[in-house]
Amino acid sequence: MAGPHTLGTDGLIPVVTQETGSGRVLTVAWINREALQQTAATGEAHYWSRSRKKLWHKGEESGHVQKVKAVRLDCDADVLLFEVEQVGGIACHTGRHSCFFQELRNGNWVEVDPVLKDPKAIYGKQDGKQAD
Amino acid sequence: MAGPHTLGTDGLIPVVTQETGSGRVLTVAWINREALQQTAATGEAHYWSRSRKKLWHKGEESGHVQKVKAVRLDCDADVLLFEVEQVGGIACHTGRHSCFFQELRNGNWVEVDPVLKDPKAIYGKQDGKQAD
Repeated sequence: MAGPHTLGTDGLIPVVTQETGSGRVLTVAWINREALQQTAATGEAHYWSRSRKKLWHKGEESGHVQKVKAVRLDCDADVLLFEVEQVGGIACHTGRHSCFFQELRNGNWVEVDPVLKDPKAIYGKQDGKQAD
Repeated sequence: MAGPHTLGTDGLIPVVTQETGSGRVLTVAWINREALQQTAATGEAHYWSRSRKKLWHKGEESGHVQKVKAVRLDCDADVLLFEVEQVGGIACHTGRHSCFFQELRNGNWVEVDPVLKDPKAIYGKQDGKQAD
């Protein structure tokens, strides 16, 4: 497939992942050419994990995969948008629906969305932070 | 206001801007602390223009400002989400509603959203690309 035309100097561009139907922005992650090709080939979102420096099949540990319904590209061809069905209804490693659960209210960041499932139960270990 | 805790090495983090109501993702831009403070102070989206290397009041030339209804922060505190009312209904410098007007179809990027207004008419000059 053609493009994205502009991959960053590290070969990565951001990808916004939005839930079909609800329109909720679930995550922002990073992607390279290989991860985009895997996404297109499998129909499930693949990203590049900057912390683990490897290809990341979203939901590979949790089962909370993202079924990709559409892939869009922005005007500058350097940001992607995935429209997905979020299996399990949980995209965030904290056990919440969306990673964007903190809202600015009167100058403070307030957690406004509930934890739907304990990360320990999702990932089966103490440190949910490393898991996806 | 506290955070975002993690500003990039260049002092910038990405911000996803989503239209209240429609849920359309309009733009992804970059922001620094000053631009976030200006956004909070004025209620209109301010970003950092990486190409022009200056604070950017979105819509300053076109009049297509973004009235910010909510500001959210992600779990890693390194991506922001603005929920906005898009004045004029046009966020993209190409004269389209959203910057994400190209969709991947059968391996090709296809323009799927119409130009609502000629950029020359929006910006009053030949080169809409430099304008906002």
